[in-house]
Amino acid sequence: MKIVYVVPGLMEEQEQKRREALLREWAFPGTEVDLVCVTEGPASIESMYEEYLSIPAAAKLTYAMQEEGYDAAILGCAGDPGLDAIRELTDKMLVVGPGQTSMIVSAMLGHKFSVITPEETLIPSSHELAFKAGVLEKLASVVAVNIPVLELMTNREESMQKIIAAGKKAVKEDRADALALGCMSMGFLNVAEEIEKAVGVPVVNPSKAALKIAEALVSSGLMHSKTAFATPTKISSGRVKNLDDLYLRK
Amino acid sequence: MKIVYVVPGLMEEQEQKRREALLREWAFPGTEVDLVCVTEGPASIESMYEEYLSIPAAAKLTYAMQEEGYDAAILGCAGDPGLDAIRELTDKMLVVGPGQTSMIVSAMLGHKFSVITPEETLIPSSHELAFKAGVLEKLASVVAVNIPVLELMTNREESMQKIIAAGKKAVKEDRADALALGCMSMGFLNVAEEIEKAVGVPVVNPSKAALKIAEALVSSGLMHSKTAFATPTKISSGRVKNLDDLYLRK
Amino acid sequence: MKIVYVVPGLMEEQEQKRREALLREWAFPGTEVDLVCVTEGPASIESMYEEYLSIPAAAKLTYAMQEEGYDAAILGCAGDPGLDAIRELTDKMLVVGPGQTSMIVSAMLGHKFSVITPEETLIPSSHELAFKAGVLEKLASVVAVNIPVLELMTNREESMQKIIAAGKKAVKEDRADALALGCMSMGFLNVAEEIEKAVGVPVVNPSKAALKIAEALVSSGLMHSKTAFATPTKISSGRVKNLDDLYLRK
Amino acid sequence: MKIVYVVPGLMEEQEQKRREALLREWAFPGTEVDLVCVTEGPASIESMYEEYLSIPAAAKLTYAMQEEGYDAAILGCAGDPGLDAIRELTDKMLVVGPGQTSMIVSAMLGHKFSVITPEETLIPSSHELAFKAGVLEKLASVVAVNIPVLELMTNREESMQKIIAAGKKAVKEDRADALALGCMSMGFLNVAEEIEKAVGVPVVNPSKAALKIAEALVSSGLMHSKTAFATPTKISSGRVKNLDDLYLRK
Amino acid sequence: MKIVYVVPGLMEEQEQKRREALLREWAFPGTEVDLVCVTEGPASIESMYEEYLSIPAAAKLTYAMQEEGYDAAILGCAGDPGLDAIRELTDKMLVVGPGQTSMIVSAMLGHKFSVITPEETLIPSSHELAFKAGVLEKLASVVAVNIPVLELMTNREESMQKIIAAGKKAVKEDRADALALGCMSMGFLNVAEEIEKAVGVPVVNPSKAALKIAEALVSSGLMHSKTAFATPTKISSGRVKNLDDLYLRK
Amino acid sequence: MKIVYVVPGLMEEQEQKRREALLREWAFPGTEVDLVCVTEGPASIESMYEEYLSIPAAAKLTYAMQEEGYDAAILGCAGDPGLDAIRELTDKMLVVGPGQTSMIVSAMLGHKFSVITPEETLIPSSHELAFKAGVLEKLASVVAVNIPVLELMTNREESMQKIIAAGKKAVKEDRADALALGCMSMGFLNVAEEIEKAVGVPVVNPSKAALKIAEALVSSGLMHSKTAFATPTKISSGRVKNLDDLYLRK
Repeated sequence: MKIVYVVPGLMEEQEQKRREALLREWAFPGTEVDLVCVTEGPASIESMYEEYLSIPAAAKLTYAMQEEGYDAAILGCAGDPGLDAIRELTDKMLVVGPGQTSMIVSAMLGHKFSVITPEETLIPSSHELAFKAGVLEKLASVVAVNIPVLELMTNREESMQKIIAAGKKAVKEDRADALALGCMSMGFLNVAEEIEKAVGVPVVNPSKAALKIAEALVSSGLMHSKTAFATPTKISSGRVKNLDDLYLRK
Repeated sequence: MKIVYVVPGLMEEQEQKRREALLREWAFPGTEVDLVCVTEGPASIESMYEEYLSIPAAAKLTYAMQEEGYDAAILGCAGDPGLDAIRELTDKMLVVGPGQTSMIVSAMLGHKFSVITPEETLIPSSHELAFKAGVLEKLASVVAVNIPVLELMTNREESMQKIIAAGKKAVKEDRADALALGCMSMGFLNVAEEIEKAVGVPVVNPSKAALKIAEALVSSGLMHSKTAFATPTKISSGRVKNLDDLYLRK
Repeated sequence: MKIVYVVPGLMEEQEQKRREALLREWAFPGTEVDLVCVTEGPASIESMYEEYLSIPAAAKLTYAMQEEGYDAAILGCAGDPGLDAIRELTDKMLVVGPGQTSMIVSAMLGHKFSVITPEETLIPSSHELAFKAGVLEKLASVVAVNIPVLELMTNREESMQKIIAAGKKAVKEDRADALALGCMSMGFLNVAEEIEKAVGVPVVNPSKAALKIAEALVSSGLMHSKTAFATPTKISSGRVKNLDDLYLRK
Repeated sequence: MKIVYVVPGLMEEQEQKRREALLREWAFPGTEVDLVCVTEGPASIESMYEEYLSIPAAAKLTYAMQEEGYDAAILGCAGDPGLDAIRELTDKMLVVGPGQTSMIVSAMLGHKFSVITPEETLIPSSHELAFKAGVLEKLASVVAVNIPVLELMTNREESMQKIIAAGKKAVKEDRADALALGCMSMGFLNVAEEIEKAVGVPVVNPSKAALKIAEALVSSGLMHSKTAFATPTKISSGRVKNLDDLYLRK
Repeated sequence: MKIVYVVPGLMEEQEQKRREALLREWAFPGTEVDLVCVTEGPASIESMYEEYLSIPAAAKLTYAMQEEGYDAAILGCAGDPGLDAIRELTDKMLVVGPGQTSMIVSAMLGHKFSVITPEETLIPSSHELAFKAGVLEKLASVVAVNIPVLELMTNREESMQKIIAAGKKAVKEDRADALALGCMSMGFLNVAEEIEKAVGVPVVNPSKAALKIAEALVSSGLMHSKTAFATPTKISSGRVKNLDDLYLRK
Repeated sequence: MKIVYVVPGLMEEQEQKRREALLREWAFPGTEVDLVCVTEGPASIESMYEEYLSIPAAAKLTYAMQEEGYDAAILGCAGDPGLDAIRELTDKMLVVGPGQTSMIVSAMLGHKFSVITPEETLIPSSHELAFKAGVLEKLASVVAVNIPVLELMTNREESMQKIIAAGKKAVKEDRADALALGCMSMGFLNVAEEIEKAVGVPVVNPSKAALKIAEALVSSGLMHSKTAFATPTKISSGRVKNLDDLYLRK
């Protein structure tokens, strides 16, 4: 099985390598994982505007990966920006979003779950994501740690403390039975187990969960449904031959 | 009051003029309306992919309109693509989306409403839009006429017949008390009243409703909430000075 | 366009004039607004019992206004008492209720909204109103200031302070993105902007919002749906000729 | 235990006696049941307007019954008109509404239930009643037989056939496990068992169910909650001494 | 009318007699009540595991009671363990569960209700029970007193204090209008009225409420619906003749 | 990784071997799968009564498997009988239920999914399972093929035809984007792909999905949450030392 992890924002080569290595370490034997990164996009994604900015390049890159013969692609942002669009474009390769996936995995583990998100401003879109994932009824709360995404990794100690504090609050006040980390940079800190020990409930790493669920679905022979994510009619009808021809310039 | 209508896809000059004239005709005395159009984008928006493709250029154009001193902008697509992002970017100018607005207006008129959408493939995203608008509980159904957007206007007679048939079905089978036309091209056909006569329930023209609600909100001194649609933190924190600097190229 | 504002409880002439003047000041150019008041009814409406007491006289008065040729009537109480009944009686004139209208307008501005209501005892009926309006999913909370309606205007300073305190609580604890004032007397204090400045989120004045939305709907050629609010069958079937004949005395 | 059944519309003496006799026949040994009837009101209640028209006289009459020492009052209309208001006014006597009660009883018997209502125009208010009762999630459908209330009893044979047909439709198409008759005149036809035999699921007679539940609650020492249905503050604060003083005439 | 109360766990003879006496005291004149107890089962039911352990013996005992000619059976545990299964097995005798019944009765008395449960660990299953009962929308909260069931009766004073404290919290913080005691041992303490006095809202004793509702339903001629709780097909098809034959041993 | 599949009803040795072989074939390299079967229980599970009958023996057997050092157990029935109880008993081994798991997997693939269940009588419990799984909002419908479980495998051709017909109905009428097979015997027919080809949407095999998700969760280091599924307090408090001591015989 071949899985590609698509980074929808700019990222330094070294960090790309580090993440790819983690993904390969996490994979089941027999799964090949590659990480690819867009060559243009936002520096990090902390607003809906940045989510949308990331989509055209990420969608095109993911689309190209289908041609490369990958079995599944992971859209590497916990906001799942453009997941529905990318699923529209692909019909031979499964695409999963770590945001919805980690919420669903959390929902499997208990009655209620909470999401820990980097910034206060991401709380509303997390609720919308839970609605799209179909598990809004199990969402206990979305709690913010108020650390910019780009500082999550440079200040690991403070990040950990704030995440643990937020997690404890969610468990105590909102009765969360499980926590989903709402950011890939949190995921690649690879600290879910430490947080779990400190907080006392399962903590879902979106990076690992997305990989594992992608492997599980591919291995089950499952893909996203094309009745739910239909190929754009301009393409399916043959009116437009090429993805690029959907975007016109005057 | 000055209102700008932003077309997020390419459109011929003549059609732009025709739509602008209609908007001006519909406006309250004292409201100035201008129509502006992006110079790059999809030919029409019939998929989530095309929605997302349209956002970067439309967001930038709308943002520029705030600098021009408009009181409100209407995002000219019934899918409201990027509405949340554009609201993040604006803090002195109201932005409304015709999709959510026409659903909400329909909800005001009765117990249940249905949306008439051009293509089958747009049904799921209409449900998500109703969730975002907060009126999902009143959504009776989304019914498709299965006419490509670009043919809606060239084949007016057939469009009318199919819309009326779909509307009657929604009223009879799904108990809709009102109908929202789910496409700006349907709106600018300017046929809501004819359909209403044929179907027997109020029919909301999204183009006109968006204008009227924008006027109503501006005149009430109301804008979208900045706690709901926060300015991206990279901008509000001063880390990034310019909108363009949010998008990097390697 | 001619709009009539119907006061469903007794009110002093002077206050009637003051409110009528405000409505005329708020209206779009070209809109004529008149205020009429019942000659019998409750002194103020602070319970469901008083809501129901007000309905027969207010319904009859509003019905008469349809004969006067008004395009729309505003039912002047934020509990919207009898709105459905009055809509049943009218088929040539739009009727709007400020309660549902201000909730819906608040819902348009953000993800969640709260209602500020005069008394604790009105909280449950506000939830029911949000259900009727179809926006219960967006209702963050209903908060009470515990001031009798009739004292809201005589003690403006204290009213303002309590409303602001309640609004801040709703924003902080319940994550409201917008506030709807849940009482016409709050509306005619004409202080929404001051409160907005103090609290930091949009504040919807039900008096002004009802007027603006009425103007918007009339100007859009829209009326409430007669499938949702059917004319009483005794009347529509011709069995009863006169509104008064629906009420019998032994 | 003493229970009073309050008829909120005009009714012939003989029919009053017939219904009172049925109620007494249905009662547990030891329960005294009286039927009282307003002296003014609608001839029958088939619209929200007629519901509201009935409330002032019915509320006053029910309030007086509390003084008479009854333990519980049944508000004799399946729309439960003014139930919340009458509960506000009473603090020593339980008040139940047959509409909500029969829905709740139906909900106890299976997973989903349907309501059979006289006229199409009553469908929306039945949904609102199910919401108020808290059992909207179990409401499979509201189906109408389209017979005016006053003809239900004069044309018993046709009524039965139409009710049975509607019930079968609800069971087959909407998967109702139980049916609630949505009209007191249906209830006093005393045909629930015949319908049950024909349709194959339990059929709840609102007249009998309201009596039985009233007896059950009184016997359990339970009354409606005064935090939910607070005495109007003008009365509880002593500002108004008399019920009549809440209604002023110029 | 003959009603049997089935204790699904082991209980001392003396306590059985005491509970039976209370039930007989509570019953309407003309109702005979007997209490029967399984001869094997858990000592008390404080987990889902103990709920399930209790079901086979309790189901068989209840099934046998149908043969004895009882009109209704009360399943004596507030978790309603196996209620749906026992309803599947019975088609001539009504079966009610005190958990769902007391929630529904609480829902009838106000807008929101809370459940007071012995242990924190029972909170999630109480939510599921409210869903099954169809009144989840009215559930304000489930609050735990953290007293093992078997100590509730031996330490009556402390139990009372903790229940009252939990009840006050539910009323104040969660806006409960009524309380349901979530344990039969709380019910047979027979202290609902004392708690009601201390807390200020109606308190529903599940033991008494189940009896009263059973009497009300039987007296209304109502049974649980066999479309909702179908006889197991192995039995209804005649493939299996005897209840015991559904359980095989190798 | 070691996974055990627990059959909660009696099954012939040969069929056990066949299913074990399939599970081993489906597993990721490195996963050991064993199948164990209770020695007493129902012949098949087609009612809630049979679900409950199966729990005590299955729970005890699964509990024993934890001692054997398995990383995860799959509860081999699509009704997930006793899943919550078994999760209460285990704190070192993940337990998954194929019913909830296959619903959740289906929910990941599109907007709506349907469940295909053997018998009409299982429809209500499937809705409850979707509620427990947290994905009720995405459940389009539950459709029955009306074939006894034990005949599903003996009459493979007819089973396939009925499943395909039911699936097509769910897609066309209920807009399901994916189907979950609601029975392990359907799963071990190993025909999901054939059905998918015939129906045109993804079909989730509960047997395979449960295995794959168990592998994914174990490999992610995740277990069900012990705040959601607390160890019974009699055990956690040390009052009872042995599982068997929770069940007493007189």
